[in-house]
Amino acid sequence: MHAMHLVRRPEGLPQDDDFELRESAAVELHDGQIRVRVNYVSLDPAMRIWMSEQKSYWPPVTLGDVMRASAIGEVIESKNEKFPTGSWVNGMLGVCDETISNGKGLEVFDAKALPDPTWAISVFGGTGLTAFWGLTDIGKPVAGETLVVSAASGAVGSMVCQIGKALGLKVIGIAGGAEKCAYLRDELLLDGVIDYKHDKVGKRLSELAPEGIDIYFDNVGGDILDSVLKRLRLRARIVLCGGISQYNTDKVMGPANYLSLISARARMEGFVVIDYLNRSAQAYQALGAWVQAGKIKNKVDVIEGLSNFPAALRRIYQGHNFGKQLLKVNP
Amino acid sequence: MHAMHLVRRPEGLPQDDDFELRESAAVELHDGQIRVRVNYVSLDPAMRIWMSEQKSYWPPVTLGDVMRASAIGEVIESKNEKFPTGSWVNGMLGVCDETISNGKGLEVFDAKALPDPTWAISVFGGTGLTAFWGLTDIGKPVAGETLVVSAASGAVGSMVCQIGKALGLKVIGIAGGAEKCAYLRDELLLDGVIDYKHDKVGKRLSELAPEGIDIYFDNVGGDILDSVLKRLRLRARIVLCGGISQYNTDKVMGPANYLSLISARARMEGFVVIDYLNRSAQAYQALGAWVQAGKIKNKVDVIEGLSNFPAALRRIYQGHNFGKQLLKVNP
Repeated sequence: MHAMHLVRRPEGLPQDDDFELRESAAVELHDGQIRVRVNYVSLDPAMRIWMSEQKSYWPPVTLGDVMRASAIGEVIESKNEKFPTGSWVNGMLGVCDETISNGKGLEVFDAKALPDPTWAISVFGGTGLTAFWGLTDIGKPVAGETLVVSAASGAVGSMVCQIGKALGLKVIGIAGGAEKCAYLRDELLLDGVIDYKHDKVGKRLSELAPEGIDIYFDNVGGDILDSVLKRLRLRARIVLCGGISQYNTDKVMGPANYLSLISARARMEGFVVIDYLNRSAQAYQALGAWVQAGKIKNKVDVIEGLSNFPAALRRIYQGHNFGKQLLKVNP
Repeated sequence: MHAMHLVRRPEGLPQDDDFELRESAAVELHDGQIRVRVNYVSLDPAMRIWMSEQKSYWPPVTLGDVMRASAIGEVIESKNEKFPTGSWVNGMLGVCDETISNGKGLEVFDAKALPDPTWAISVFGGTGLTAFWGLTDIGKPVAGETLVVSAASGAVGSMVCQIGKALGLKVIGIAGGAEKCAYLRDELLLDGVIDYKHDKVGKRLSELAPEGIDIYFDNVGGDILDSVLKRLRLRARIVLCGGISQYNTDKVMGPANYLSLISARARMEGFVVIDYLNRSAQAYQALGAWVQAGKIKNKVDVIEGLSNFPAALRRIYQGHNFGKQLLKVNP
């Protein structure tokens, strides 16, 4: 079995040398343990924070440890009756092709009930839950309001856009490049699309939302957040999900237009999806209904091979991924 | 009658030449009008915004117009039965020593019921209302929580501190200089005081609030806001009242630590007191009860003479005022 270990804290963008692919000998299972063959590893923006020494909702990954990651896999050997051999599990399995677990924090899921097992780490996993709770609980949307989403073709962003449409919002997506924007316009049927690499974001926001922005679901921070802040409607809500444009810099750019929150009587609020885990059934029920109704598309971007983990990770910070970035480590 | 007219939009700190003191001839009153002799003009941080071309909850002051200001005065002639001669009025009378009004937006108050007429533009005026609604409605305080207040010896700040104490909060005030800090400690009896000109704000916050900050009432922005953001307790609330440190700069410093709002599941929210004017009776009742109970002190800082308006205004941006800054224009 192989795993990617964090051996150095990245400075700026994570480099290949920040990780080491290590092999370990197979060992016998103790009672209560299971052996999981990992199929897909989820690559998430927050990984950059876990690799740093920064405190967040999870402690930093200890140097030398296997890199933390959400993943799915099949149980190939079991000494734990809750996880029979052949079942699929979902949880923080780490960046590896095989692992031994006592089952803590793992969930069994019915892969056959899904269009594809990868839906368990996208729509019906942390990605879908993050989008659902962030938009509904922090954004408090009201049908007819205007929602702006950054990184709109990304994993969480594309879910937020689709949930927003399902809830009757006017949805404007911001993404980089013609291909991603075409997807948002033609496949996700958004009401407005902005290509931040080509368009003037502020000018386009003014054109597409002349009455102002009610909800902004922010995955990126930086200039786009500042452009939105200048165009808030009264009592607007900014859902702070992440700030991917600022994760690899030494000096974070704070939102210079934050004082607009005063004149707009608006709020900017952060959230972390793990606070909602005890209410997942409620979210999955809503998401399931929208999937049944054909309202949710799931786009994944798959890179193969454990050794390509650092390169796959860089893709999400450079905006090269198109859809949920996954690393396929076993067929 | 004399008035201070805005003749140039300030760059940076307001200068004497941005204003012009003009005299106008006395004219006869029409039906419905009153003549008010202005006694005290209130100097408020938001004035810097009204002087600029920036949109806010009020339009910019038009160049050439009398500078907008809240003030109190006595009715010296009346053709409006709602405002009898000899009554005291409170409202946006402007920076002047006498003015003619149709009474719109003016309130009559009983000066004899107050310790001093100036209480009508401090505790029982916009200052008290701003402190009361910002802390209670946006801050949503719970007894026992830790409240940090910047510009704590200033007009709004000192009211927030005292309301916080009355509500059973642990209150930490931040102010500049030994004299102001002594006032906060010895007169307002705060639980902790930080002199931002002398202490290391972040280090002192960690010492005084080792468990983190529940509510931050922000009047200043800048470095202090960033220091607080690093020390938020779970589900903290930042009440954005103003950003006085940023009003006279070209390039506003955004809060670089804003992403702490995510890990703390915290929110930063702006408000404007005019939204609460229809609920003033409720606020005045609470404030009145605290005044009766001896829980509210009112410190005013008075500069005399209409021509000293620009200098008095600079005092509040330079932190030279100590208490509510007023301009006395008539005895």
